[in-house]
Amino acid sequence: MSQPGPLREIGHSVERKDGVAKVTGRAQYLDDLVISGAVYAAIVRSPYAHARILSVERAAAAAVPGVVAALAAADLGALGERPFGTFLKDQRVLARDKARYEGEPVAVVVAEDPATAARAASLVDVAYEPLPPVIDVVRAREPGATLVHDTPPALGRQGRWPTVPGTNVCARVAIEQGDVEQGFRDADVVLERTYTFPRVFHYTLEPHGAVASATPDELTVWTNTGHPYQLRQELADMFELDLARIRIVVPYVGGSFGGKSFPKLEPLAAVLSATVGRPVKVLNGVEGSMRINRRHGARVTLRVGARRDGTLTAKHARVLLDGGAYADLGPVVTEKTSVRLLGPYRVPHYSIQVENVYTTTTPAGAFRSIGGPQSVWATESIMDELAAALDMDPVELRLHNLVSRGESVRPGLRPMDADLGDDLKRLGKAMDEAHAPEAAGRGVAVGISNPAELPISTAIVRLHYDGSATVLCSMVEVGQGLHTVLAQIVAEELSVPRAAVVVVSPDTRVGPYDWSSGASRGVTIVGTAVQRAAQDVRAQLLALAAEVAGVPAAEVAWRDGAVHVGERRVAPAQVIREWYGRPAGEVIGRGYVRNLGRDPAFWEIGMGGAEIAVDRDTGVIQLLSYTGLADVGRAINPQLCEQQDVGAIVMGLGHTLFEEMAYSESGSLLNPSMIEYRVPLVTDLPATLHAVLVENGDGAGPYGAKGMGEGGNLAVAPAIANALARATGVRIRDLPLTPERVWTALREAAARPARP
Amino acid sequence: MSQPGPLREIGHSVERKDGVAKVTGRAQYLDDLVISGAVYAAIVRSPYAHARILSVERAAAAAVPGVVAALAAADLGALGERPFGTFLKDQRVLARDKARYEGEPVAVVVAEDPATAARAASLVDVAYEPLPPVIDVVRAREPGATLVHDTPPALGRQGRWPTVPGTNVCARVAIEQGDVEQGFRDADVVLERTYTFPRVFHYTLEPHGAVASATPDELTVWTNTGHPYQLRQELADMFELDLARIRIVVPYVGGSFGGKSFPKLEPLAAVLSATVGRPVKVLNGVEGSMRINRRHGARVTLRVGARRDGTLTAKHARVLLDGGAYADLGPVVTEKTSVRLLGPYRVPHYSIQVENVYTTTTPAGAFRSIGGPQSVWATESIMDELAAALDMDPVELRLHNLVSRGESVRPGLRPMDADLGDDLKRLGKAMDEAHAPEAAGRGVAVGISNPAELPISTAIVRLHYDGSATVLCSMVEVGQGLHTVLAQIVAEELSVPRAAVVVVSPDTRVGPYDWSSGASRGVTIVGTAVQRAAQDVRAQLLALAAEVAGVPAAEVAWRDGAVHVGERRVAPAQVIREWYGRPAGEVIGRGYVRNLGRDPAFWEIGMGGAEIAVDRDTGVIQLLSYTGLADVGRAINPQLCEQQDVGAIVMGLGHTLFEEMAYSESGSLLNPSMIEYRVPLVTDLPATLHAVLVENGDGAGPYGAKGMGEGGNLAVAPAIANALARATGVRIRDLPLTPERVWTALREAAARPARP
Repeated sequence: MSQPGPLREIGHSVERKDGVAKVTGRAQYLDDLVISGAVYAAIVRSPYAHARILSVERAAAAAVPGVVAALAAADLGALGERPFGTFLKDQRVLARDKARYEGEPVAVVVAEDPATAARAASLVDVAYEPLPPVIDVVRAREPGATLVHDTPPALGRQGRWPTVPGTNVCARVAIEQGDVEQGFRDADVVLERTYTFPRVFHYTLEPHGAVASATPDELTVWTNTGHPYQLRQELADMFELDLARIRIVVPYVGGSFGGKSFPKLEPLAAVLSATVGRPVKVLNGVEGSMRINRRHGARVTLRVGARRDGTLTAKHARVLLDGGAYADLGPVVTEKTSVRLLGPYRVPHYSIQVENVYTTTTPAGAFRSIGGPQSVWATESIMDELAAALDMDPVELRLHNLVSRGESVRPGLRPMDADLGDDLKRLGKAMDEAHAPEAAGRGVAVGISNPAELPISTAIVRLHYDGSATVLCSMVEVGQGLHTVLAQIVAEELSVPRAAVVVVSPDTRVGPYDWSSGASRGVTIVGTAVQRAAQDVRAQLLALAAEVAGVPAAEVAWRDGAVHVGERRVAPAQVIREWYGRPAGEVIGRGYVRNLGRDPAFWEIGMGGAEIAVDRDTGVIQLLSYTGLADVGRAINPQLCEQQDVGAIVMGLGHTLFEEMAYSESGSLLNPSMIEYRVPLVTDLPATLHAVLVENGDGAGPYGAKGMGEGGNLAVAPAIANALARATGVRIRDLPLTPERVWTALREAAARPARP
Repeated sequence: MSQPGPLREIGHSVERKDGVAKVTGRAQYLDDLVISGAVYAAIVRSPYAHARILSVERAAAAAVPGVVAALAAADLGALGERPFGTFLKDQRVLARDKARYEGEPVAVVVAEDPATAARAASLVDVAYEPLPPVIDVVRAREPGATLVHDTPPALGRQGRWPTVPGTNVCARVAIEQGDVEQGFRDADVVLERTYTFPRVFHYTLEPHGAVASATPDELTVWTNTGHPYQLRQELADMFELDLARIRIVVPYVGGSFGGKSFPKLEPLAAVLSATVGRPVKVLNGVEGSMRINRRHGARVTLRVGARRDGTLTAKHARVLLDGGAYADLGPVVTEKTSVRLLGPYRVPHYSIQVENVYTTTTPAGAFRSIGGPQSVWATESIMDELAAALDMDPVELRLHNLVSRGESVRPGLRPMDADLGDDLKRLGKAMDEAHAPEAAGRGVAVGISNPAELPISTAIVRLHYDGSATVLCSMVEVGQGLHTVLAQIVAEELSVPRAAVVVVSPDTRVGPYDWSSGASRGVTIVGTAVQRAAQDVRAQLLALAAEVAGVPAAEVAWRDGAVHVGERRVAPAQVIREWYGRPAGEVIGRGYVRNLGRDPAFWEIGMGGAEIAVDRDTGVIQLLSYTGLADVGRAINPQLCEQQDVGAIVMGLGHTLFEEMAYSESGSLLNPSMIEYRVPLVTDLPATLHAVLVENGDGAGPYGAKGMGEGGNLAVAPAIANALARATGVRIRDLPLTPERVWTALREAAARPARP
């Protein structure tokens, strides 16, 4: 039916669709929306990490003029009782009998304006009986440890991993292959090391928020979620409503990176609206968002064995993830961590066990490559340690062990779909080109991850009779450039001007189903759904043109961006006008994706190399250059790909050099604002910071594209720590690599007797 | 693929979808919407029916604190120059050099709040040079009459009828058959009579309004229009934007009846927003809407000939429609009037000419059965006059001449698709049952009209994985019950609970194309599009179930509301869950309608009979009973059909007994508010007011449905005037039949010598 020609729209760094609206301030974010009759919620939070709630005095707050209601869990009826959670139903919109982390919502004041709500919230008097905090993940796993959850929560809709009763284990995943002890017996060198990864705040420019309007038979939530359809299901369960009666509307979102996945403030806003009978706006500041979401801290104890020639024989890993007070996506993070710990190497024998552990800290959830940076931090640090032990070049050691294209990474999963060795050599070449003469050390790291596990997306493309087109899908434009790329795909498939393609932001009432805005799945999965919808439009255009001309379908073809009926060339929009008999009507295409072959839909490849200098007097690591590499199959829009990869690298610099949510012994967050909590600044960036895109056209997505956007942060920490080890001989196994930590390590190394 | 079974959802008077929201006040209408950053417009209107605008002093208004801008046409740049109009481009958002009717917008003040805008608007000082008004439609047609438009306007996008240069004729349509003079020569009796029909205000509970937000590359208009897609095209032309970049959002609408069709306040709101750079809200009160829209007044001179036995031989009609200052839909009203004047009778020879004439009065536009009540008023009055002249029973005369099923009404149009004779007899029977003993006279009338000329609609039905469904289409729920009926159709086709079907209000960004919310086309045309979309879902379910089961399509069937794979019964939602492999995804069905056979898609049949008493001392007509009859093919929801027909009858009572926009010689509207302008009240309704629904299953719409909802007001005026003639011997040919007019006629008749 169609003849593929050269690509016109694909592979060009065209202007962002959302660029002008965003830089001119016209783009509407959640807080810009004005919802008729809305009232404002202020949250009363627990000052204790762990405490029994004895009473909530709310009369004084309720008496403040302008206050609509001052509410504790007990005031919310059945909706306040109902636990929610996509994987484990362990959370309620307000804490009932127990607060499980400092900052947990215990009560809410709803008022006509935010200032009144905040003032009245300070009058709510909660009596607590403090309980022992559970802060350290190792102690939390010890027998007799205080339990964060007294009774095991039920599995959520997507729950597959139950908690381990009588312990703080929220989820446990173990994977094995071969006989790991035999593998270590086969080894000439065995190393065991423990690496720690900090709890990292999930910073986005826009904090969490939700506005909800509940009526008896319909619930609308405006929110900056990344997962409108997952949220729809959660709220349908909670409110016992048909899916069609739940409307999730997502305006522009100021960053998500996973941190706005799954229910966050939406259930609270919805229950409050149902309770007070008005739309309710719940908006966090950044301090509030520090009490919502973070990356799992991790303690990874890794044992690897290798033959003298560098051939890996065995890998043994025991991992404790710090999950915080509620499961959120934790069980999936646990499972993904287990696979990501395998790394990109051929290992005949392995035994990996990952436990996600409840602690009385901010709940941990999805965060750009779940479990990826934690895993790669350990596995790629130990590769350099192993190289040192074997006296091999660390790159050579990697090349020796990397899985080849088509080789199994883990049985049951898609075989490797990239040329990792070529990629690594290319990274080395790019690093050579970016070489900074003053560099004291250089390090590389290789990360892979298995994202896009659930490739379920649907899309609608509407072609109008003037040749412009509208794309309906429900992945969220969180800044990744999705709208631009989808417009390129539709322009390519339908031969319409890219500027005439409008991509609509999600609204579950009208935009068709999509699984999630995460897992690097946008171009590959959603892009395929949109491409299929556009191709469905094209197929219909051929049929309509044949009908108009009264010729058999075989006499109609798509060629050079138009329908050809015999020798007559008919532009797509003209077909519509002719079929409807006037300038009217439209053609509606649909596209479904339920799988793209094996799981994962693609392997995401994120490599990186760093060159650093170290100030031995202060312990400051100066990053001189950083080169990322993303194997993207096909870059629909190279500039957007590079920006994503560089963005991920910068985010990785955060956990590598600066970021850690620090807790006191009593469970208090010690750096609870952006003054105390340090994210990378522009001044922290290296002079050379760039990304190499590998395009082999070998992805399962449109035009051979694979996903990317998460992989960039995989390699950063081990690459820099490996560079530090090369520059100074000092191996640090705890992140972040703060000046204090580096300085201390340098001092300790200097104090140690030199090796024989 | 499917086996039709008995209908479960169709034919039941189920509860309105929008009922609870409307009676509880939850339903959101235009003025309920809060648009972020919106400013308010107050319109400065011409106090003259016709005047040259010499200057517009707006400095004083602009200086009022809170005023954003005080604007005349000259301030609007190219957008102020650009004429608009779907049929004739004769209108601009503000009058430029000339005002053409009292109340025409001449300037606008935009301010932060409506009160400030109104106060500042009173400070705008416009200097006028009065011009001769053009009020009377006969004088407007005389040679040398003052011209309302000095230069002929260009045709609009749908324009087919140009103005007649040098005259006030906005549109002229003539239709002929046979040799009309021969027809009169064939006649034994020839009657010539002139009937007049008043200018009628287009009253709806909710006045006109629009809120617009224009950015350089996108225009959003929230409005209570009945024609979102026609409006999209007009604004795309005006703003030179792709169709995909124009978004028309329609919330609940408080009545339209045609009066909210085509551009009304939307171009003004859009141009103001583009000018001031903020969203602008333009909301009329009912007094403002009296300056926007009304029904065409008409002067119909009719000559009919008949043989002694009642057989009609010829009809000659010359009609002047009073179109007001701008064309709006006038040209189409002109064309429709010409056909509707034919009536439901076999007439071998006819000559009909209709002219729509510009006058300096409120523009006339679409109004429930355009040209219908005016035509039927004349044709059905003269039938009774002819019966009297022939000394025949007026019902017998009609039965003798009614076209039969399958007989041509007008060459080129769909042959009659109803049994008019049976219908009329059924009406008589129902009137007998409703007979009021105190009745002094009884009259009937038969109307037909050719609506739904352009049956272009598209629809999307989304079936979710829990079995609930969402319907996207772009006809407006204006109170007619559309959402309820569409939900019944989808529930029927997909065997899902009706309560689980959500029908979404129009938003052109997401809801697919629809031609219009008018012409009685909802069930027949939009219903067919939705039915096809649901059937498309069903066809896909069968294919997906076959794919899941791995069986040929032939082994899968739809039976008893479910998919059957061999002997296994699979509910629709379960097919979705199985195909996507989990509770996820959806199936998207689409339906297109471009024609339903011949034009019109159906003949709308509206008959009615009245019984009255007359107070000879006051001239008050007391309506004792009124029986309507609508030949609906199939009533999807009988109660909604009856309510529509009764509603149309009550509207017809307005122009029959009470309503007329009265103008002074100078062109001033003498009854410019709902105090002075009298619409029917509940206390005006007869004790018996009901509608008979004829269901022969012979319509082109779903389940044999035809359209209805306009026809009820066709017969009211002639039925009552015919009853009056029978009760008193007095024939009145001018509407409304006010007490004054009736009393005067009775007096004049009493003063005349009795007939020999």
